[in-house]
Amino acid sequence: MPESVARKLISTHLVDGDMTPGEEVAIRIDQTLTQDATGTLVMQELEAFGLDRAQTEVSVQYVDHNLLQTDEKNAEDHAYLHSACQRFGLWYSKPGNGVSHPTHMQRFGIPGKTMIGSDSHTPAGGSLGMLAIGVGGLEVALAIAGRPLTIRMPEIWGVELTGELPPWCSAKDVILEMLRRHGTKGGTNRIIEYHGPGLEHLSAMDRHVIANMGAELGATTTVFPADDAVRDFLRAEDREDDFVELLPDDGCTYDVTESIDLSGIVPLIAKPSSPGNVVPVAEVAGETVGQVVIGSSANPGLRDFAIAARMVDGRQTHDGVSFDVNPSSREILTDLTKWGGLFSLIAAGARIHQAGCMGCIGMGQAPAPGTNSLRTFPRNFPGRSGGGADDHVWLCSPETAAASALTGVITDPRELAEKFGLEWGDLGLPETASVNTAMLTEPPSPEDAREVELVKGPNISGLPEFDRFPDSFEVPVLLKVGDDISTDDISPAGAAALPFRSNIPELARFAFVRIDEDYPDDAEAGKETGHAIVGGDNYGQGSSREHAAICPRYLGLRVVIAKSFARIHWQNLANFGILALECDDDTYDVIDRSATLSFSDVHAQLQGGDEVRGEADGTEYTFRHQLSPRQVSMVLAGGLIRQVAEEEA
Amino acid sequence: MPESVARKLISTHLVDGDMTPGEEVAIRIDQTLTQDATGTLVMQELEAFGLDRAQTEVSVQYVDHNLLQTDEKNAEDHAYLHSACQRFGLWYSKPGNGVSHPTHMQRFGIPGKTMIGSDSHTPAGGSLGMLAIGVGGLEVALAIAGRPLTIRMPEIWGVELTGELPPWCSAKDVILEMLRRHGTKGGTNRIIEYHGPGLEHLSAMDRHVIANMGAELGATTTVFPADDAVRDFLRAEDREDDFVELLPDDGCTYDVTESIDLSGIVPLIAKPSSPGNVVPVAEVAGETVGQVVIGSSANPGLRDFAIAARMVDGRQTHDGVSFDVNPSSREILTDLTKWGGLFSLIAAGARIHQAGCMGCIGMGQAPAPGTNSLRTFPRNFPGRSGGGADDHVWLCSPETAAASALTGVITDPRELAEKFGLEWGDLGLPETASVNTAMLTEPPSPEDAREVELVKGPNISGLPEFDRFPDSFEVPVLLKVGDDISTDDISPAGAAALPFRSNIPELARFAFVRIDEDYPDDAEAGKETGHAIVGGDNYGQGSSREHAAICPRYLGLRVVIAKSFARIHWQNLANFGILALECDDDTYDVIDRSATLSFSDVHAQLQGGDEVRGEADGTEYTFRHQLSPRQVSMVLAGGLIRQVAEEEA
Repeated sequence: MPESVARKLISTHLVDGDMTPGEEVAIRIDQTLTQDATGTLVMQELEAFGLDRAQTEVSVQYVDHNLLQTDEKNAEDHAYLHSACQRFGLWYSKPGNGVSHPTHMQRFGIPGKTMIGSDSHTPAGGSLGMLAIGVGGLEVALAIAGRPLTIRMPEIWGVELTGELPPWCSAKDVILEMLRRHGTKGGTNRIIEYHGPGLEHLSAMDRHVIANMGAELGATTTVFPADDAVRDFLRAEDREDDFVELLPDDGCTYDVTESIDLSGIVPLIAKPSSPGNVVPVAEVAGETVGQVVIGSSANPGLRDFAIAARMVDGRQTHDGVSFDVNPSSREILTDLTKWGGLFSLIAAGARIHQAGCMGCIGMGQAPAPGTNSLRTFPRNFPGRSGGGADDHVWLCSPETAAASALTGVITDPRELAEKFGLEWGDLGLPETASVNTAMLTEPPSPEDAREVELVKGPNISGLPEFDRFPDSFEVPVLLKVGDDISTDDISPAGAAALPFRSNIPELARFAFVRIDEDYPDDAEAGKETGHAIVGGDNYGQGSSREHAAICPRYLGLRVVIAKSFARIHWQNLANFGILALECDDDTYDVIDRSATLSFSDVHAQLQGGDEVRGEADGTEYTFRHQLSPRQVSMVLAGGLIRQVAEEEA
Repeated sequence: MPESVARKLISTHLVDGDMTPGEEVAIRIDQTLTQDATGTLVMQELEAFGLDRAQTEVSVQYVDHNLLQTDEKNAEDHAYLHSACQRFGLWYSKPGNGVSHPTHMQRFGIPGKTMIGSDSHTPAGGSLGMLAIGVGGLEVALAIAGRPLTIRMPEIWGVELTGELPPWCSAKDVILEMLRRHGTKGGTNRIIEYHGPGLEHLSAMDRHVIANMGAELGATTTVFPADDAVRDFLRAEDREDDFVELLPDDGCTYDVTESIDLSGIVPLIAKPSSPGNVVPVAEVAGETVGQVVIGSSANPGLRDFAIAARMVDGRQTHDGVSFDVNPSSREILTDLTKWGGLFSLIAAGARIHQAGCMGCIGMGQAPAPGTNSLRTFPRNFPGRSGGGADDHVWLCSPETAAASALTGVITDPRELAEKFGLEWGDLGLPETASVNTAMLTEPPSPEDAREVELVKGPNISGLPEFDRFPDSFEVPVLLKVGDDISTDDISPAGAAALPFRSNIPELARFAFVRIDEDYPDDAEAGKETGHAIVGGDNYGQGSSREHAAICPRYLGLRVVIAKSFARIHWQNLANFGILALECDDDTYDVIDRSATLSFSDVHAQLQGGDEVRGEADGTEYTFRHQLSPRQVSMVLAGGLIRQVAEEEA
């Protein structure tokens, strides 16, 4: 039977299960990716497992989030991660080497391989024909230990691309078009597979943009075929030997289908404060802009910086605009400098920052209150910029960003091009990349690794231990929230909280504070009793951080009742022994904050089917759950770590 | 009578007084410099004065400290400063344009002019033959309002330079040699004037290094003649018309004399944690290094970055080292990029940061605990790096820094040069600078300025008002500290505190916390009664920040009794109505923390002479003060703002 790229990737790695959408499948994992904000916990999990040596083909630990070093904690984390990589046999990518996703693609990505990463933008690896999925850190730790990943088989969503992008439109506008059509939940339980003749004009790095930000659609991942564009990319990276062709079979079918005529794309922009809030740039042109930032893993390629450099070359960015440039990797910064683009950016007034995630993860670059900030980033959840919950962050292409930096108002790049007589066309970029692996440290031999001592400063807290799930209990609803609550809302990133990512008791002090500043205190006071949270649709969207499960669990969270859950967070809840129950709109409306929930005989109910009965203030309600038997036993054990320990005991 | 450059500068600006060392002189001020961490208060002081228009020839507000923007407060301050510059008629230098001192030198410095700045490294302007003095913000505000600066006439310390620096030694080693000879108090109440044939081989930017870090000797300022090197510099900056020759008269004499044979200089380094802790690099060679940072106003010149770039070109910095580069200005970054040096640095593994003070003021770049950090900065006070009070920061030249970045251990650059066969000599730098004023906003006309609204967010607190000094009072000693307490100890910089520089009530929460974390609470609890602090020698050294006087005053500080005071802080205490009394060693030894001090008839005592009697726990002691009658009336009025208001009433 003719197969899609996505199904080929899964079938060649299938360890267990049946590839029917909705059924659990277990997949062998070839590669893992961790970044520092999630990796410190992953390394502590490896310690907890007593792992001797990574079992994957390649596992890489990047340092790209905690780079500000406003006190000693960041550098302390870096030292811990370096020592853990040496001990457990992982590659270590030094601070300054770059953002995980483009760097991994450049140095390690291989068509046909599977990868999981404790970062929600891991799907960027799909640009090379990999199956790359963002998951919680604990699942990455288990993959490093050699275990397969278990997920529900997603539907495959075939998106046919035809035509060619018009001038001044680029890959970012394609993924913004997908978000305009389908919103932030459109990809739930789906793998998006792009195919068709339109691919011919999209480079591997263009595809990275689309695959990366597919996370904002809620998709499990995005895949592209490994075709000549991928071969070209790997050749430029001096890795042509790693190329393996991987194409969809002629006549293969998809569970869902879609088509985009690229020639009909216009410059698009996501308005504050959701990546799904997409409109044509022309519709909002003229709004005053105070900050423009280019960079991040959503526009990481040399051409993304080069087009902005070409547009501002010989000009001055607007007096009222802070124009910030975040190089995505040392390699790209090297090439941009060699090509002359960095010079153009500096001369035009850019503030050049170190290579890393920077403002994309709220590490600096917060805009002033009430100021519009245009960014080439993937996300604009409220407050993620560090500029307060009423920040005004917009998401757009480098072309729209550079045009607006020059004019000081939101500007359609086609208008600017006409005004300045700018030519669209080949940028004349170098055909080969400045490959330099000096900031990547290879793991030592297993023998040498065993001699390595872990370097643990006082900020490396150790993992908290959680108890088994009770059979009957009564808990208050401590928080009731609306739709689309993100993991940024649950456990914020940003410069204040991120340095504590390796220290759960301290990090828990930040849980939900954007929504209710009393939550950490109230929850901690009732820790023994425990508590529940009621949520709306798409609860837990966004970043993969398992801290968004661990911190509330640490503070006593037992149950989340929501209309629906985002995939990664839903799994993270199970991983740490929190019960995720679904309710309908009517039930959501009547269960209020401070209601008392009571459940009896929960173990048997969970093992017996997909319904759980409970009472809220004495009235009985029936909730649903989507946990597989494996996940039920995980929750009852008090989480995956205890489940694994019990299996191995 | 033949005169020195320093005395010529003062005599041509003398408004009042007698130029006898120790006597008060009032000097007309031509230019002012403020940076953002002190400037937000200066602008609030201008508001308090009801100023309409700056009365100086040139006043420039730089934004170089608060650049991390970890939340909305930094950008809010920038917007306030921009609007205040527009309102009061100051130039505004945008974030990213560069560090105040080199930028001011490049664009505004003029030989023969006087300048004061609310930054202790303002003396860097002495490199051009200016009289440039670091003072508290309130004195800058008064200068902007047209008032002269009053100081005690310093001694002039003539330092004759002969010979020529040997290979791999540079200007930083000259000022480190001065610190090695004289320590951090060697320059107290002195202006250092360099002269002699050795000047021929020191460029204006080399002289900037020496003048800038003269602040670490405790000197009032440093001056150089305006000779051909200055003309060359101004020509390269496209400002030859601003050149005025200013040389010492033949046969002029100095109050104190000194001589340095430059040919005898060796690479030097200041050990943790004082700039006065200087030894030859060779003596400490081999110590492991975890971080190397180049940049800051103490090594801001293109050649300082270029020599490092040349040394690492085609090589890789050591695996165990984070190599951080802080460009000092956009102009220098532009030229470094054009010349190719930035490429060499990036390729060698450098983390390139935005142009600004960055780690030099504790805004990021904190080293890991227990790690040696080598920096080309001017200061290494304990904890200033953000890496905790037991940080290990060393100060050295770019040559020593680059050599150590390559080897991973402290390395004498002469050894490295021999090992790698590096040639010492002309770097072939461009003869003219890439002048670009687009990030400097000129003030509008007075008419337009009057229409400008100040942009004040919630973090701009307004100035607290302080009461008159009581005639009799009884206060507890809340804190007793040792020698060399810096203004960093009193009111820390760094990423946590600096964003509150425009918000005294919030900033006061950080006062003295490195020494006693209970101080803010204890002081606030007894605010009505007030309190005293007992200090050792050189109390208040370092940065000019007037916050180190205002915050303790806000918390009730009335009196500081110390063995001796650093000049700027001593003036800041008087400016905000705090009495600075001196005691001998024996008295210091017996007055303990929690002693009760009582003073009676203080007004008459202060007005009657230089002694003040008081009791500590019932025993009488006699203290001295060095306040002039003008300063006595300032303290009694409750500070300079009230004094000015009463004069004008």
